[in-house]
Amino acid sequence: MHSLPSRAMRPLSLSSPTLPRSSLRFLPLPSISVFHKFRTQLSFYRNFPNTLLLPIRCCSSITAKPSSEIPRKRSESEPDHKLRAIRELFSKPGIGIDAYIIPSQDAHQSEFIAECYMRRAYISGFTGSAGTAVVTKDKAALWTDGRYFLQAEKQLSSSWILMRAGNLGVPTASEWLNDVLAPGGRVGIDPFLFSSDAAEELKEAIAKKNHELVYLFGVNLVDEIWKESRPKPPKKPIRVHDLKYAGLDVASKLSYLRAELMDAGSSAIVISMLDEIAWVLNLRGSDVPHSPVTYAYLIVEVEQAKLFVDGSKVTPEVKDHLQKASIDLRSYDSILSEIESLGAQGTQLWLDTSSINAAIVNTYMSASEKYFGQLGSKRSKRKQGAFNGQSGGTNGVYKASPVSLAKAVKNPAELEGMRNSHLRDAAALAQFWVWLEEEVQKNVKLTEVDVADKLLEFRSSLAGFLDTSFDTISGSGANGAIIHYKPEPDTCSVVDSKKLFLLDSGAQYVDGTTDITRTVHFGEPTKREKECFTRVLQGHIALDQAVFPEGTPGFVLDAFARSSLWKIGLDYRHGTGHGVGAALNVHEGPQSISFRYGNMTPLQRGMIVSNEPGYYEDHAFGIRIENLLYVKEVDTPNRFGGIEYLGFEKLTFVPIQTKLVEFSLLSPAEIDWVNSYHSQVWDKVSPLLDGSAREWLWNNTRPVGK
Amino acid sequence: MHSLPSRAMRPLSLSSPTLPRSSLRFLPLPSISVFHKFRTQLSFYRNFPNTLLLPIRCCSSITAKPSSEIPRKRSESEPDHKLRAIRELFSKPGIGIDAYIIPSQDAHQSEFIAECYMRRAYISGFTGSAGTAVVTKDKAALWTDGRYFLQAEKQLSSSWILMRAGNLGVPTASEWLNDVLAPGGRVGIDPFLFSSDAAEELKEAIAKKNHELVYLFGVNLVDEIWKESRPKPPKKPIRVHDLKYAGLDVASKLSYLRAELMDAGSSAIVISMLDEIAWVLNLRGSDVPHSPVTYAYLIVEVEQAKLFVDGSKVTPEVKDHLQKASIDLRSYDSILSEIESLGAQGTQLWLDTSSINAAIVNTYMSASEKYFGQLGSKRSKRKQGAFNGQSGGTNGVYKASPVSLAKAVKNPAELEGMRNSHLRDAAALAQFWVWLEEEVQKNVKLTEVDVADKLLEFRSSLAGFLDTSFDTISGSGANGAIIHYKPEPDTCSVVDSKKLFLLDSGAQYVDGTTDITRTVHFGEPTKREKECFTRVLQGHIALDQAVFPEGTPGFVLDAFARSSLWKIGLDYRHGTGHGVGAALNVHEGPQSISFRYGNMTPLQRGMIVSNEPGYYEDHAFGIRIENLLYVKEVDTPNRFGGIEYLGFEKLTFVPIQTKLVEFSLLSPAEIDWVNSYHSQVWDKVSPLLDGSAREWLWNNTRPVGK
Repeated sequence: MHSLPSRAMRPLSLSSPTLPRSSLRFLPLPSISVFHKFRTQLSFYRNFPNTLLLPIRCCSSITAKPSSEIPRKRSESEPDHKLRAIRELFSKPGIGIDAYIIPSQDAHQSEFIAECYMRRAYISGFTGSAGTAVVTKDKAALWTDGRYFLQAEKQLSSSWILMRAGNLGVPTASEWLNDVLAPGGRVGIDPFLFSSDAAEELKEAIAKKNHELVYLFGVNLVDEIWKESRPKPPKKPIRVHDLKYAGLDVASKLSYLRAELMDAGSSAIVISMLDEIAWVLNLRGSDVPHSPVTYAYLIVEVEQAKLFVDGSKVTPEVKDHLQKASIDLRSYDSILSEIESLGAQGTQLWLDTSSINAAIVNTYMSASEKYFGQLGSKRSKRKQGAFNGQSGGTNGVYKASPVSLAKAVKNPAELEGMRNSHLRDAAALAQFWVWLEEEVQKNVKLTEVDVADKLLEFRSSLAGFLDTSFDTISGSGANGAIIHYKPEPDTCSVVDSKKLFLLDSGAQYVDGTTDITRTVHFGEPTKREKECFTRVLQGHIALDQAVFPEGTPGFVLDAFARSSLWKIGLDYRHGTGHGVGAALNVHEGPQSISFRYGNMTPLQRGMIVSNEPGYYEDHAFGIRIENLLYVKEVDTPNRFGGIEYLGFEKLTFVPIQTKLVEFSLLSPAEIDWVNSYHSQVWDKVSPLLDGSAREWLWNNTRPVGK
Repeated sequence: MHSLPSRAMRPLSLSSPTLPRSSLRFLPLPSISVFHKFRTQLSFYRNFPNTLLLPIRCCSSITAKPSSEIPRKRSESEPDHKLRAIRELFSKPGIGIDAYIIPSQDAHQSEFIAECYMRRAYISGFTGSAGTAVVTKDKAALWTDGRYFLQAEKQLSSSWILMRAGNLGVPTASEWLNDVLAPGGRVGIDPFLFSSDAAEELKEAIAKKNHELVYLFGVNLVDEIWKESRPKPPKKPIRVHDLKYAGLDVASKLSYLRAELMDAGSSAIVISMLDEIAWVLNLRGSDVPHSPVTYAYLIVEVEQAKLFVDGSKVTPEVKDHLQKASIDLRSYDSILSEIESLGAQGTQLWLDTSSINAAIVNTYMSASEKYFGQLGSKRSKRKQGAFNGQSGGTNGVYKASPVSLAKAVKNPAELEGMRNSHLRDAAALAQFWVWLEEEVQKNVKLTEVDVADKLLEFRSSLAGFLDTSFDTISGSGANGAIIHYKPEPDTCSVVDSKKLFLLDSGAQYVDGTTDITRTVHFGEPTKREKECFTRVLQGHIALDQAVFPEGTPGFVLDAFARSSLWKIGLDYRHGTGHGVGAALNVHEGPQSISFRYGNMTPLQRGMIVSNEPGYYEDHAFGIRIENLLYVKEVDTPNRFGGIEYLGFEKLTFVPIQTKLVEFSLLSPAEIDWVNSYHSQVWDKVSPLLDGSAREWLWNNTRPVGK
């Protein structure tokens, strides 16, 4: 007879939201949950599929500026005149609030934002990419996640409370507000800076203590105190994305969108995600680092379309391009008045509330409620169900933007541009790696930043180069284990022959976007490093080689990439794959390959995903091997169920360092994969190279075996 | 420039419940959705994890009766006097209904039910295991799924409309009722035969046409017309499940339950799942075929416990056993009056509404509402949130039964019993296989039923044998492709040396429950059969060998079992693994390994799952390889994240026919797996055998290679 083993006998409650501690692995990292510990995940994935589980890089650098030129931020924050100034505004007429929340976002849920929108960094002094500041009449607190605890400690003055999100006992921002404010408080936000969904969740959370969420439409309190020192909004000229790269003209895309509108029973749609606008209009911009987009809103109606953008960015060529597609220009700032007028006419507006900001959604709903109110009380009953997150309802259609998935499924021209840009990128990387190997062998002292700068130099010389697609992660030794590492010139480590070196980088080209990680050792890797590297490689190969029935969500494949690590009790704490735009954002949805099992988006022919398993040993080393892949139909000998079977084709062709491979662990099929890949690398990239780079490529693509 | 490819450019709507056709693979089969096309899945999995995705066998046979003795059902239904009689009852005083629904269930959501509860079969003539009959004043319709279309066509008279659930355009039962009844109709059910959740869903669905769901408490209309010919409720004696097999005494289990009650803020729990009652009380019964359970309800309060059971089944030994655990006996039929009295006293009753029937939940809620009503109007506001599916609320705690997971996580004694019974079972199978091989070689004509009967004969002679654990699936050639095939004496096929033969069978022993599938060929398999068999085997091996972090839900591993089939465009339309009880139900929850991604229950140490990938080629052959496994901690060299890594240990030790293996497809590691498994089979099972069976085992466990 056995006494009751507490472990075996204390099952989880299945119906309660409490998860066992080990299941926390499957939840998003804390920083997306500043307001809600368990917020709906799907809409988040769709817009921002990778924000916190794959390297997100700080966006404070200026486009394509070498890392060494990025000014260091002061480590001491200025005195608290900013907090004093903002609190003075709390009691101004028309404001009257008890707290103000300053998020990291711009009005478009962008991953990389322009400096003028870095309000949270301005008010708090904390410059990390993720954080939320909350200021009350007598307190100021900043939430950030584990990546930034040290940085925030350094940058925040003593007037700020650092909230280490995700740590035990640390409240969410709304919990904290519910705690510190007297019941019935007024919590102000700039409604442009919250998606409608996020604002609704916040509203609900603080309603528990009868606090009211106050939308301050006319004024951003940070901008008020920032004044003249606030950088100007970016005004970089927009350019036309050539049809030979876009593959589909704007007229076709608008026809598609309009057909979707009709199907959904709506007559207009607002698009606010900057990459969606760029994709629909075949336009590109330079307003933010890394993403070739321009600040704008787009409204497509059945009969017309309007682009809301700063007119000074519109070149004659762009104007002509837009005119041909019958797209009218409006000023960026006139978006709300247009929304109001659409609502007031009873337009059935399609709004993706996971990305469209609360200012727009709120303005539309108020205006359209007035319209429907005027139609008489008969309709009032039906109206109540309007904002239920479902399609339909009397005013407005609330569902995911139809652009997200259309953009994710690449057409042949987009794929061609991606393939071509990846080959050029591979040539630059070959030049870079041979240079780096030689420097290290010569014992030249090179910092992580020096190395990143040199890589940029090689890439910059390529045809069609525009920008890096994110801040280069150049991590030597223990720094490689910091998944979101960003080297800073004064503090970074040295790349040498004693440590593993992880390099995750990418570029924007006129025809495509790249994102590649390689991990190398310039001396003698340890047995441990080799075993870990080999198991990461096995995961990479397993995912690369996967075949799966159409309709399969990406998360189904995630375990393939982890299986080999799991066998020896290892794992990694980020997703395995994210979508990548074609000459667009390096992170896009709606698909992902991740252990976050909520994203049911099936992988579809033409989608691009990264394949980037890794392993990170704290204070020791980091390993990641990343290629980009696209989904293609596989010509299987059978088609059980009468459906397509899908697989992947590689876009990235850069050698994987075989010195790090413990071949005794590999199966013959895995060794074949390595040799076949390297043979393709040679065939595809060697024509672009000569001299030492070509020689390096030859040496690094020779067949290997046990 | 490309025109718009409709495929690429017509993305799914992400926010709508509509799924692409190909995603239907990931939905449960239609027959669980007679009332709702998209019903909540989790609670279903928990109670009935495998009902429709793995072989569910018709339960019309009598316990352990050889298949050949099972009487054939008449293929012509009797005249419609039954329908006439039941319709006459519709207008009786106290009834007054326009339609009556007769489901397949008993009052306990059992997989196998006693004959007296086979009301749907009685009224409709259709004897398949899954189906729902709906009778209106002028129509009668029966819903069943694809497994049973042919059978239902034969068995239903012309008075019945056959509803082929899952076929395009076929309405659900509630859709149909909404269509055929005049608005405001009264739809009657026996509230004992619907889980509370199912009844609530039905109620909501028919409310769309203002129909009312009427609970007919005092009377089952089918029983009324069945009268004397209705079989008596089973009265098989209950026996004590020996502590050496149970591992935990009843007192310990009750302590655990009571601790759970306190944690949940409740003071009593009703348990109605028959296997949960058997597990908590260390009792076993013989009331239904295949599952060693007895019809009963159990109420555990903090200070006392009551078993509601037919007293004639309680032997002196059982009475003594129950007395020692301070469990009072009540009559089976007095459950509602006890529930009413608990409600009337304001008891906080824990009810798992996914399994507890609507009669109990409804009775409790009415009684406790009266109680709380008497406490005055102050509490009335709080009461409104009581029945919200969350824990808490003023009257009642509505969450999953704490017994389900506790029962799934086996203790060492249960595992020991499972191991031992599996070895004996393996010995019987060895005897069986050598017999069958010899008979086939001698060209003796053997039907699928003959073979199943002979297997039962071998098993029956084993120590501790009680019953089959389900109706044996003995499928030769094309019959093997019918996943839920049940051979019938007059129509079944012959087992010979020309066809593949699939045999899925299991037994109930005093110490354990088995479930095993082997597929063999007695002559020369085709190249196709070998390739398919080998790929199924590779999937079986991949799952068997998986290592995974604690907290991993079963569905994460499902793709491992399919990957090899997917590579050539093959798949199978059932789950890969279900839970198995220890000397209890052959199908149990809450865990499962399936492509139904809703079941987030993590696999935990001590859980038992089947590993049964397959492949089925319509009209040709079926392949399935099934072992039972238990989850154990793996002693990995690392423990990334400070958590346990888990894997599987086999329970089943029966040779896999290597004649069917195409060794050129296997990796060296896979070949090692086969040889290592067979070496274990020999070591563990040969001591139980002698003569030709031992020789057979020797011959079938020799190392093989390329």
